[in-house]
Amino acid sequence: MPAPLESLFRARSVVLVGATDRSIWSGAAFANFARLGFTGRVHVVNRKGGTVHGLAAATSCRGLGEAVDAALLMVPEAAIPEAFADMNAAGIRNAVMLTSGFAEVGAEGAARQAALLAEARAQGVTLLGPNCLGFINYADRVPIWTTQPPLPVLRGGSIGVVSQSGATAGFVAAFAHRQGIGLSHQVSTGNEADVNVARVVDFLVDDPATTVIGLFLETVHDAGTLAAAARRALAAGKPIVAIKIGASANAARAAEAHTGSLVGDDRVFEAACRQLGIIRVPSIEALVFTAGLLAKTGAVRRRGLGLVSISGGVCEMAADQAEAAGVAVPALAPATVAALRAVLPAFGTPNNPLDVTGGAMLDPPLFERSLAPLGADPSLGMLACFMDLPDTAEEVAGFRGAIVRSIGAGFRAAGLPAVMLGVIPRPVTEVGRALLAETGITYFGSGVPQALGAIGRAFAWSARVEQGLPAPAMPALVGDRPASEHATLAYLAGRGLPTIPVTLARDAAAAVAAAGDGPVALKIASPDIAHKSDIGGVLLNLRGEAAITEGFARIQASVRAARPEARVDGILVAPMRGGGLELFVGVLRDPLWGPVLALGLGGLWVEALGDTSLRLLPVSPAEVEAMLAELRGARLLDGYRGSPAVDRAALAAVVAGIGEAALALGPGLVALEVNPLLATPGRIEALDALAIWETAP
Amino acid sequence: MPAPLESLFRARSVVLVGATDRSIWSGAAFANFARLGFTGRVHVVNRKGGTVHGLAAATSCRGLGEAVDAALLMVPEAAIPEAFADMNAAGIRNAVMLTSGFAEVGAEGAARQAALLAEARAQGVTLLGPNCLGFINYADRVPIWTTQPPLPVLRGGSIGVVSQSGATAGFVAAFAHRQGIGLSHQVSTGNEADVNVARVVDFLVDDPATTVIGLFLETVHDAGTLAAAARRALAAGKPIVAIKIGASANAARAAEAHTGSLVGDDRVFEAACRQLGIIRVPSIEALVFTAGLLAKTGAVRRRGLGLVSISGGVCEMAADQAEAAGVAVPALAPATVAALRAVLPAFGTPNNPLDVTGGAMLDPPLFERSLAPLGADPSLGMLACFMDLPDTAEEVAGFRGAIVRSIGAGFRAAGLPAVMLGVIPRPVTEVGRALLAETGITYFGSGVPQALGAIGRAFAWSARVEQGLPAPAMPALVGDRPASEHATLAYLAGRGLPTIPVTLARDAAAAVAAAGDGPVALKIASPDIAHKSDIGGVLLNLRGEAAITEGFARIQASVRAARPEARVDGILVAPMRGGGLELFVGVLRDPLWGPVLALGLGGLWVEALGDTSLRLLPVSPAEVEAMLAELRGARLLDGYRGSPAVDRAALAAVVAGIGEAALALGPGLVALEVNPLLATPGRIEALDALAIWETAP
Repeated sequence: MPAPLESLFRARSVVLVGATDRSIWSGAAFANFARLGFTGRVHVVNRKGGTVHGLAAATSCRGLGEAVDAALLMVPEAAIPEAFADMNAAGIRNAVMLTSGFAEVGAEGAARQAALLAEARAQGVTLLGPNCLGFINYADRVPIWTTQPPLPVLRGGSIGVVSQSGATAGFVAAFAHRQGIGLSHQVSTGNEADVNVARVVDFLVDDPATTVIGLFLETVHDAGTLAAAARRALAAGKPIVAIKIGASANAARAAEAHTGSLVGDDRVFEAACRQLGIIRVPSIEALVFTAGLLAKTGAVRRRGLGLVSISGGVCEMAADQAEAAGVAVPALAPATVAALRAVLPAFGTPNNPLDVTGGAMLDPPLFERSLAPLGADPSLGMLACFMDLPDTAEEVAGFRGAIVRSIGAGFRAAGLPAVMLGVIPRPVTEVGRALLAETGITYFGSGVPQALGAIGRAFAWSARVEQGLPAPAMPALVGDRPASEHATLAYLAGRGLPTIPVTLARDAAAAVAAAGDGPVALKIASPDIAHKSDIGGVLLNLRGEAAITEGFARIQASVRAARPEARVDGILVAPMRGGGLELFVGVLRDPLWGPVLALGLGGLWVEALGDTSLRLLPVSPAEVEAMLAELRGARLLDGYRGSPAVDRAALAAVVAGIGEAALALGPGLVALEVNPLLATPGRIEALDALAIWETAP
Repeated sequence: MPAPLESLFRARSVVLVGATDRSIWSGAAFANFARLGFTGRVHVVNRKGGTVHGLAAATSCRGLGEAVDAALLMVPEAAIPEAFADMNAAGIRNAVMLTSGFAEVGAEGAARQAALLAEARAQGVTLLGPNCLGFINYADRVPIWTTQPPLPVLRGGSIGVVSQSGATAGFVAAFAHRQGIGLSHQVSTGNEADVNVARVVDFLVDDPATTVIGLFLETVHDAGTLAAAARRALAAGKPIVAIKIGASANAARAAEAHTGSLVGDDRVFEAACRQLGIIRVPSIEALVFTAGLLAKTGAVRRRGLGLVSISGGVCEMAADQAEAAGVAVPALAPATVAALRAVLPAFGTPNNPLDVTGGAMLDPPLFERSLAPLGADPSLGMLACFMDLPDTAEEVAGFRGAIVRSIGAGFRAAGLPAVMLGVIPRPVTEVGRALLAETGITYFGSGVPQALGAIGRAFAWSARVEQGLPAPAMPALVGDRPASEHATLAYLAGRGLPTIPVTLARDAAAAVAAAGDGPVALKIASPDIAHKSDIGGVLLNLRGEAAITEGFARIQASVRAARPEARVDGILVAPMRGGGLELFVGVLRDPLWGPVLALGLGGLWVEALGDTSLRLLPVSPAEVEAMLAELRGARLLDGYRGSPAVDRAALAAVVAGIGEAALALGPGLVALEVNPLLATPGRIEALDALAIWETAP
């Protein structure tokens, strides 16, 4: 059980180990205590003693002569064992390690890192890094961070940023700062020998100063902890916004060189985000604006957006981007239209998006008059007004300042959550920040696409919060290890799942007896043969004694010729099925996230389009219905060319049951496939199934 | 034939009509002559005379007493007829009209605009607007523009911006200016009564000061001129980068309110862009960075990108964004790897993307040493180095300045097209511009996604330029007006296209004779019935005299019951076909662009996925092959589940021939559909065809 992070992130005394005036890292780390207003004790240790950063340096931690909460280790990699031992001897239980040369440089480094972790665990030390830049707790003014943060520090920020790349944490902080957006924390986790992103997220979910969590991930070292923390965050209404790299092979290669991370299967991460309510974003810009918006609005109840601008062109671009981002821009109610008609110039049109017209340049209060009536429109839950924030005192004093004040008044009159947004990306100057403070306006200098992207994500997350995330129970393990098609179908049937009735026939006579009157399919039954059709192991649509007897012999001969070594249990006899929609249901074990359910339309759809949806197991039937809706061929479920619709709820219950059945087989199961699962209006039925085990059963 | 735009955009004398000190538009327009360094003559006209903007105002254009090249009309809409007449009487042949209240306010305004145009045409006047902000010709320092442009003016810009929204032209100019990117022109076309975007593009293709053309479009008023200009631009290697709004219904509504424009079918515009080499972008940011990049690089020959950064995290984000943007980031050659190993620190990894490591903060020349060897790598044709440009003199003097100088030296040593790119979006300050001038670096403060997006578009356009755009000949018109299935198939067959052999049988005996031994399909032949199957007008797989005779009667009865008024020519007899891939080929007349070819996989693919590709006609077979490659189900053409592949070249030739056949039918044709076109490895054959005419033939 790793120690909680409280005492690290709220350290009241810190020692810099390997401090020296010659190092920019050491200099920055020392200066940061004053820059951030740290009120605790700071010590410096240098093997040679002397004066460092203006303080008398101890030659060791033991030599400090007092208890210290945390150490920042900056010595070269070769000196780490000694420094670590000294730190332990001094009773320091939190270490931040800037030093690199561990898992990121290959096998030898990984061994050094493992040894370091073992030592840390033995001593009860919480270790951040190695190969990290440290952390800043802005809320409590505790900086153990080795580069210069953007200054002056913006107080009252509530976004906690956690990053596996230290430089990237710095870029996120720098960009947020330029946009006037403050942070509560920034944490660089580096190689994550001990403390990882998941644990920091878990900490931040309970941190009262943090309302939004932002992540930069190369990999997920502890998916279970992250999933649990994400569930807690969703329940608490605290959004997690995450960049996760590694969708491309080049990025995966780069990540391995950077922090020794394996990026994992991107589609599984994507599925986990969708399922857990983690908001995945593609860039620093998207992270900062999405987190910044959610820090201001929280969950948005009514998700219709009123768009306002002084330019028709901007209205149109915003409307297109809104559609691309899935944001509803509802038509205005007649009463709103009438109210707007009374205040707009004759050549203006009451519409959503609303072009207040260039008349507002001569008559800035036109903004207030136009925004106010939007607050009463029943379809609108949020207002977004595109207007660039003035940069200079001169602009603030002129019509631009008057327009912003008018927008502020209009927002207050409307009484809805509201943001002002930059038409083009630009930073917020000190003068601009003062005007925002004066008017109470929330503003992002985002440009149109980033603005609508952030609003779209905030809306989608708000819907996700309302929906909630009940955790389906894990099924009890069973002792079964079905392997053959026959045994796997029987196992599923035993759990109450609908499967095609098959008979295992040892000889032709048994097959004929099993077939009865109907046409049947014959399939070779062998634990050694997965692709039965490829070797002549399947015959379809046989009817009558002669055909079945002949078919039985033909399959036996084909299989014997193609796979003489294969064990043969007999031949399966199954009634023929036709019509309906074929689905593919598979459970696979992801190395990071564990069992994952894949669902797709069968045949051509899976093979030619790769049209599948994924989720972590266990899943609820409701979640399976969401998976069905994600499929590109989803409309086939509603009936196609006159064939009636499939019962989605019944289908979802069966698929969720297959997921449960897979989990109940325990961790030895590598994969379970039901392919096809045949769905017709009246019947849902597994026609074929296959289980694959870690070691042959 | 409208007059050329030369004398408007290079006017040497201008009169401001309706000039007044009380108007911010008039004031800005007047001040702009000095701001831009206009060296021609400026006059002011005000009905009341007096002193305006410090000049003695004439009371009319006629009263000026000298010839003037262009007039800027700023009088209210009601005063326009008089002002226009005065201008005409004074012999002024170029008018820029700020005044609004025309097509954008509805039918009455549209009538006023039509009258205005008629008058302009009668007088030989070139008219920009109404409802426009004017233009700035930065190259020749001619500004007839009614708001303040960003200052100081950046000289030497080569991007010509043309926008139907004046405010948006201003935002584009403002954003470009903040990024240190200059323009050659900015033109606001407003309602486009006379001068439209297409004509301005045509002008800019020949303008030597312009190397890239940037557009903001709500609609396309003159698709033929735009297409011709785009072809000339592509041939001249001059990129066109375009924002076109209207993908969403809300934007379409907004555009109508704004400039009275109908946005048109977005999919057709998208197809036109693809075909004509117009680079479509979603935002002002994308327009400015893409145009800015292409203004620096022109067409890029070798399209492998070397990505470099000081941060592993940035390398990874850039690699992911490169993949998303279709940019190849090739693995390095062994010689490059060896050369890099010799210069990188021990913990660095020679790789593409290349993380030079944080070591470069202490040792800035590491950038030069790392960039230089990349120039010799045979897979790389361009370098992109992520590094934020310093903002302040202090930063330039410190290690950040040293790093930028080292990057400049590395770019020179590598000898490839190269750009430095901001990790986060930020403007370029004056200090930064000076450092760029000193180091010769091309820089964009774009952030990672915008940077890779711009590079991806530049690469794709470069490939398009190499490919060229031969204009297929328009086929000669024929007199035919086939309407029925039978006649349409016969028309196609007459043009040498493969069609199924059908016989029109007047009675059952004729049908039996036509059928011979094989199984046949019977289909009702009527010019009045389009959806034959729905009313029992089709029977499949009939064989033998009895079945065919019975079927013939059954169809007659069904049709008579369902559509007693329909004219019936007889019943078509066609051999049954099976297997192969069904395609949908349709020609439709777009109201803006004219005849458009739609190609898709038939049946489920078109209906459930809307999986079609569009092109303007005429198309070459090579273009049709590109269409086939765009289909989401394209891999079905390469064979599926053992069925052999379709001959794409042969298929493309048939489809191009169907397009030609449609064009040859002339402008009365509303639509021509071949559905299905059956493609098997050995045969391509139209199984059904339908022509629809403007008036019944």
